[in-house]
Amino acid sequence: FESVCTGAADGYARMSGQPALTLLHLGPGLANGVSNLHNARRAHSPVINPVGDQASWHLAADAPLTSDIASLARPVSGWVRSSTSAASLASDGADALAAAMGSPHRVATLIIPHDAQWDECEGPAPAPSYEDPHSVEASRVSACAEALRKESERVLYIGGSALGLRGLRAAARIRAASGCRVVHEIFPARLERGAGLPGFERLPYFPEQIMQTLEGVQSMVVAGTRPPVSFFAYQGLPSVPIPEQCEVLELASLADDAAAALESLADALGAGADFDTAAAAEFQLPSGALNADSMGMVVAALQPEGAVIMDEGATSSLSYSAYSQNSPPHTLLTLTGGSLGQGLPCAVGAALACPGRRVIALAADGSSMYSLQALWTMARESLDITVIVCANRAYRILQYELARAGIVEVGPRAQSLTDLTRPNLQWVNLAQGMGVPAASAQSAEDFATLLARALEADGPFLIEALI
Amino acid sequence: FESVCTGAADGYARMSGQPALTLLHLGPGLANGVSNLHNARRAHSPVINPVGDQASWHLAADAPLTSDIASLARPVSGWVRSSTSAASLASDGADALAAAMGSPHRVATLIIPHDAQWDECEGPAPAPSYEDPHSVEASRVSACAEALRKESERVLYIGGSALGLRGLRAAARIRAASGCRVVHEIFPARLERGAGLPGFERLPYFPEQIMQTLEGVQSMVVAGTRPPVSFFAYQGLPSVPIPEQCEVLELASLADDAAAALESLADALGAGADFDTAAAAEFQLPSGALNADSMGMVVAALQPEGAVIMDEGATSSLSYSAYSQNSPPHTLLTLTGGSLGQGLPCAVGAALACPGRRVIALAADGSSMYSLQALWTMARESLDITVIVCANRAYRILQYELARAGIVEVGPRAQSLTDLTRPNLQWVNLAQGMGVPAASAQSAEDFATLLARALEADGPFLIEALI
Repeated sequence: FESVCTGAADGYARMSGQPALTLLHLGPGLANGVSNLHNARRAHSPVINPVGDQASWHLAADAPLTSDIASLARPVSGWVRSSTSAASLASDGADALAAAMGSPHRVATLIIPHDAQWDECEGPAPAPSYEDPHSVEASRVSACAEALRKESERVLYIGGSALGLRGLRAAARIRAASGCRVVHEIFPARLERGAGLPGFERLPYFPEQIMQTLEGVQSMVVAGTRPPVSFFAYQGLPSVPIPEQCEVLELASLADDAAAALESLADALGAGADFDTAAAAEFQLPSGALNADSMGMVVAALQPEGAVIMDEGATSSLSYSAYSQNSPPHTLLTLTGGSLGQGLPCAVGAALACPGRRVIALAADGSSMYSLQALWTMARESLDITVIVCANRAYRILQYELARAGIVEVGPRAQSLTDLTRPNLQWVNLAQGMGVPAASAQSAEDFATLLARALEADGPFLIEALI
Repeated sequence: FESVCTGAADGYARMSGQPALTLLHLGPGLANGVSNLHNARRAHSPVINPVGDQASWHLAADAPLTSDIASLARPVSGWVRSSTSAASLASDGADALAAAMGSPHRVATLIIPHDAQWDECEGPAPAPSYEDPHSVEASRVSACAEALRKESERVLYIGGSALGLRGLRAAARIRAASGCRVVHEIFPARLERGAGLPGFERLPYFPEQIMQTLEGVQSMVVAGTRPPVSFFAYQGLPSVPIPEQCEVLELASLADDAAAALESLADALGAGADFDTAAAAEFQLPSGALNADSMGMVVAALQPEGAVIMDEGATSSLSYSAYSQNSPPHTLLTLTGGSLGQGLPCAVGAALACPGRRVIALAADGSSMYSLQALWTMARESLDITVIVCANRAYRILQYELARAGIVEVGPRAQSLTDLTRPNLQWVNLAQGMGVPAASAQSAEDFATLLARALEADGPFLIEALI
């Protein structure tokens, strides 16, 4: 199932920094991968999609599998080309690579007719050169420094390539020098965090929460991402939930070298080498009922140093996110494009990219059903992935949105559309069916015991956390 | 998972003749359903897709889930519109319905901005009128009659709406009167067949097989479909595998009333009311090893009258297809667009459309992995569906294609790409995880016992046929 492949490509690209290659088959094969390509596009992951098409001379026959592949590819691709012959295929491939590795990185889709695969070619094309991230002009740095030197409420808002260790350290120096707040985007493609690393505020989800956290802010400096926008529109709330009086200055766009720009800004502010970091927590393992809170605390307490956390826990992983700020240093991957079913495939790609590191997939039961086939790939490749399915047996976010839309008395039919209990999904059976050992936990103690065991196991293990 | 929804819509539309309505969420939600919408488009099923988009005033913010929905919709839709306001929504919906129910039926996609759902509207629009199938001019009928009166090799090639009972009976009368052969398309959206009904040749799959079956044919009359084309291109074989000397006459296009045209043609040939039908077989239940052949015979022997067979068995159901010509009368649904993962969802829609009839999904293990979430829907809706997973634990068709491409010595990596044995999928576990009771069969006797039991059971049952 292609969504596993495209999601894995995204995860591989995020963790390796290298371009990832998929292989897709005609329009339907691409379409099956579009959901996770959408997330890869929002993550600015360098992913190259060769998509096999009918032979050029067979297109006119309009055979059953024929369709307009380019039209399917464009919404998720920063670069699309239909190759015309075997002769141009090598240079087309080099161009796809250059497009994917440009700044910002992007999804590049190369449509390849069948005959281009069997006709004679002229050998390899020269390796392409990549467009480097753009350097930021000194005038932008000094304007941002001036804004952050003011007495007013100031926020440095960071995302994208600013969230690597270099950018985070520079942001922490800026905070130390200027006293500004630092807030990071809510859904980073990749964030380094944990004890001993700089710890920053995470932007909240709903627009009224964003408005509240930014209340009174008069200057916002943005690096590595765009200014915050609301995930969805709500009547009476703004698209861009930034206070009206707030001036927004772009330090570094998506195409810029955000880490270098932040270092320049820190220097311009006269920042020293020291900065605050998050403390290590002394976690007490909880007991009693397993719920989103106790589950989050157990994961934060037990995750090993260097873990890669793929968080698609949706409404179930909010507590985890707060607790794990003080866990050993780790890498956080999140759902960048909002398209459900990224978690398990992205974990596959991360594990392939980082064989020495433990990958933990915090997965929601609703969203995991989009791409559960990834479990088979985990078994097939013997990947060291610990899957935690947060089984609340509901599409909880939709229940929240119903309530937000003022629909407080939900009829039985609407209720049934957000209910995953008729019948309950049995994740232990599903995992075993794919060749992944699994067990279920109902109490915090059971969950901790299982998780400790799973984190030591070679290969994948799935825990169904009945929260 | 939206592919279950769109595939079910296709199955519902095929069995009811009524338009089916999906409900999809932004670009990724549509994209997840594109694979089975591709099959629905090739089946000419009337399917209407309302796709929710961001509020019109929120599009400019380019929020994470925003993408070009129309570009994703066009390749699978015969009609696409982006609604602009609540005021136009009712008439837009009526237009979508008229487009879907036009001739030929089509997939219609209506993109609906969020604000059009909460703004005031002006009440319902008038019910639209539908474009009827076109009547065929008398001159076309007489030209076709003239061609079929010749002494030469003649074929009547039928598909689409010609495959209902009216069209089939007319085709059988034409055969009786003219002595022509009648061949039907290989992947019909819906075909009525079995003992007591006219039985016709099925077009084979590979182009050289088609060339062989059409060798010496000098006249081909086509009704309800297009002339045969090769599914894929192969070096040295034609796109359209019809003998050069063969004249091709179109009696009825996809937009025409093919059944009426066939009746006119039968009358023009002076055909009587009598025609040959397929005989009922006295099946002997096989014993011993379970393989594609014995499995096919057992299904053909045990399927009840009026069964709806959704055949996505790929390479595993060829024997079944031959044997079941003499089973009790039944309806056959096939994979019209070649996009894998149609079988289980389409069976869901067929069962919803035909509560009194037994649905049998002949499913291949590779393709069923594309949309196995349909099993949960079968359990949730207590649908009387008997799922037979033909578990050959391989992507056999790809192994065939490798051999056809002259690659006879397959290396271990290429071999592993068509191999489903590392680890074996455990379909019994997978089904139980979704709430569907299941069992596995290794011998023909076990399979027959299980199938007889499953066909009597209320609600879904899955049999893993280890062939």
